[in-house]
Amino acid sequence: MDSAVGTNEKVGFNSWCPLLIFDSMQKLKELAQKIRKIGKDDPRRVLHSLKVGLALTLVSIFYYVNPLFYGLGASTMWAVFTVVVVMEYTVGGTLSKGLNRAFATLLAGALGFGAHHLAALAGDKGEPILLGMFVFMLAAMATFSRFMPEIKARYDYGVTIFILTFSLVAVSSYRVEELIKLAYQRLSTVAIGVTTCLCTSMFVFPVWAGEDLHMLVAANLDKLACCLEGMGVEYFGEKMESGSLEGKSFLQSYKTVLNSKATEDSLANFARWEPGHGRFGFRHPWNQYLKIGAITRHCACSIEALNAYISTLQQSHKTTKDLEFKQKVQVACANMSKETGKALAELASSIREMKWSSIAGKHLAIATETACRVMALVPTENSTLLEMLISATTASLLTEVVRCTNPVIAAVEELSRLAEFKRPEHGRKAGTVKPIADIESLPHAVIVIEK
Amino acid sequence: MDSAVGTNEKVGFNSWCPLLIFDSMQKLKELAQKIRKIGKDDPRRVLHSLKVGLALTLVSIFYYVNPLFYGLGASTMWAVFTVVVVMEYTVGGTLSKGLNRAFATLLAGALGFGAHHLAALAGDKGEPILLGMFVFMLAAMATFSRFMPEIKARYDYGVTIFILTFSLVAVSSYRVEELIKLAYQRLSTVAIGVTTCLCTSMFVFPVWAGEDLHMLVAANLDKLACCLEGMGVEYFGEKMESGSLEGKSFLQSYKTVLNSKATEDSLANFARWEPGHGRFGFRHPWNQYLKIGAITRHCACSIEALNAYISTLQQSHKTTKDLEFKQKVQVACANMSKETGKALAELASSIREMKWSSIAGKHLAIATETACRVMALVPTENSTLLEMLISATTASLLTEVVRCTNPVIAAVEELSRLAEFKRPEHGRKAGTVKPIADIESLPHAVIVIEK
Repeated sequence: MDSAVGTNEKVGFNSWCPLLIFDSMQKLKELAQKIRKIGKDDPRRVLHSLKVGLALTLVSIFYYVNPLFYGLGASTMWAVFTVVVVMEYTVGGTLSKGLNRAFATLLAGALGFGAHHLAALAGDKGEPILLGMFVFMLAAMATFSRFMPEIKARYDYGVTIFILTFSLVAVSSYRVEELIKLAYQRLSTVAIGVTTCLCTSMFVFPVWAGEDLHMLVAANLDKLACCLEGMGVEYFGEKMESGSLEGKSFLQSYKTVLNSKATEDSLANFARWEPGHGRFGFRHPWNQYLKIGAITRHCACSIEALNAYISTLQQSHKTTKDLEFKQKVQVACANMSKETGKALAELASSIREMKWSSIAGKHLAIATETACRVMALVPTENSTLLEMLISATTASLLTEVVRCTNPVIAAVEELSRLAEFKRPEHGRKAGTVKPIADIESLPHAVIVIEK
Repeated sequence: MDSAVGTNEKVGFNSWCPLLIFDSMQKLKELAQKIRKIGKDDPRRVLHSLKVGLALTLVSIFYYVNPLFYGLGASTMWAVFTVVVVMEYTVGGTLSKGLNRAFATLLAGALGFGAHHLAALAGDKGEPILLGMFVFMLAAMATFSRFMPEIKARYDYGVTIFILTFSLVAVSSYRVEELIKLAYQRLSTVAIGVTTCLCTSMFVFPVWAGEDLHMLVAANLDKLACCLEGMGVEYFGEKMESGSLEGKSFLQSYKTVLNSKATEDSLANFARWEPGHGRFGFRHPWNQYLKIGAITRHCACSIEALNAYISTLQQSHKTTKDLEFKQKVQVACANMSKETGKALAELASSIREMKWSSIAGKHLAIATETACRVMALVPTENSTLLEMLISATTASLLTEVVRCTNPVIAAVEELSRLAEFKRPEHGRKAGTVKPIADIESLPHAVIVIEK
């Protein structure tokens, strides 16, 4: 590294300065393209940004307009504060945070008030000690409650605000005289902030978490459908085992489905807070979407297994005997793949349009029937060959497991290099390490092991 | 529902009161058990709760002790505030939030100050308008930046605090005279809060996100190993296809691996903020853990496919011909399963102890060799049967995809019922709906279709 620094120093300012400017211009251009892409992918993001600006400006009017300011005092800050923290991308997110904040403030305020009066009984010296104990106990208990999955999922923010407000009220009660006035101001400014957020969020180009969840679940089904239909045409269709499947976009799209759980969970959580809107009632069955999502991921998993098998097959096997059996299986596979794809696409559009149709079932019935027929294709009277096929399939699947363990070893090996794990088999236990300085090409060391 | 309420009203207070008490006692007992379990599963949770209480109590001392209070004024509140919001479970989380908060406050404070001076040039009437425009623009721009994945992952909290502080400084600059004093107080109280959090978090029973990630990745490998070894013994071992695999715990444990991405991502994100500690240096290759995690999930996916195939096999096929071929395959499968399991277990312990060993590679080599031998078992001179096996395996895998699409249809159908989707095939398009009140058992309606 030192020599590199030396080289750089020799290059004059004039020669690298234009390069530097060009480089940063390039980076700025890339950034601009990236920003444009983010906005283009979902224009609601631009609208949301403007909405946050709008809500903040609305709330700061309270500060600028004189009569209102004198009524609420410096507490108006809390309204600004509330808007910044509560305003979320989706209506459900804003509602969840806003209601959590409002109720937690109310509850903790009342409790803090009670704690103040209780502590006052202990006299001037005892009061801070007692208040400190209350704060310690409540903070510890509330923090522990956040480890409960139900509370973590829905009321995490509320618990934070609860601890915050209780501490603030309990601590400041020791100094502030007009506690009631403070509490009133705090509550009304929080209410102003929450109301501003809710109005902006719900009435100005609202983004509903429920609708996003609805669309996401349908889009995931569509991705699987697209993958299966693509395989039905491209792989099982005319050119089975001839064309390489690598780099096909339909083989990549389903992979995002495998990691969609976190997004679905958070959207469903927010959707539960949302009032009825458009096609979605207040008690819309959001849980059912999570169930569909879980099964969709299971489906994506078996598609992944199928793809892994096919791609290793393409790499290792180049035999192209045109057995009659093989051709029949291929035709059946093309059929199964396409029909299952159609069934999934139908389900996706059924969700999207909220219109149930039994066509999906019909497509899948054809696929299932074809699947049953494939096993019957085995050309023997006795079931020996069928049994062999079943055993061999199990072995093939297990072979896939073995195969995909290989990259795990490679990855852990890389980690062991990067993180400098100990390597006991080289005998470092009781040895002395003597690096060989002369042989430049080999980064090895000679190790003398004392047994 | 109405009739049910009526029935309840008839039951006297005396008879259901003990029941109610018993019921709530039962619920309280369950809650207590749940709380105890959460604490027992990971005692660090209890410690964390006490640490939050401790940090808050420490900070409130600033408020109670007089000389300090008069130096910083009512701004001490901000220290309490900072502690509540910044204190996270892991050191990395606390550091990430603390540093984000400190730097965002500094940057936004300076910018807000600049905005105040710029706006002051516009005169008394123009100032609030100009300030409002600044707040609107900065809030919108900063909110938009949160949609960039890199910023969202690492600086999300910082952006919130940036908007917050800028708005507060810009807005209050219109009224507060001593802006410099306010900024100084705000910054020093935030610094006090952040320092308190960091000290408590790092020096009192620290929970390192990096260590948690390290252990999680190893534990996930262990889960897969446990599943494969269990299958090697229980399913492929002596009693292949005889004993049911349902309800075996080793078949359930790997399923959590499939959904571990979100946890791993957040832990890796926090780990990057942590200083070197114990066996982990400052620039420990945390990204490599994410890579291992991704490959592990891929592995879990193929195990899922294998399990799904085996479990449908167990339900549908009860043939137990003891072919020689089948027995040989079974022995080979038992071997592959156990050796792969051992390899994964070895990798897990290699990570845990940070000691690289090549034993994992040896186990996997045995498994791979066995896998190669299985295909050679096919008892034909020509490769016809092998080709048939390969086609049949592809068909079997595709059959699995078809099979797992079935529950998707069922789930969407349930959704369509719960969410009351339209059912066009019943001909609601241009029909009138006439409910039949007389036939109680059928919830159907007579629909007259006008063509």
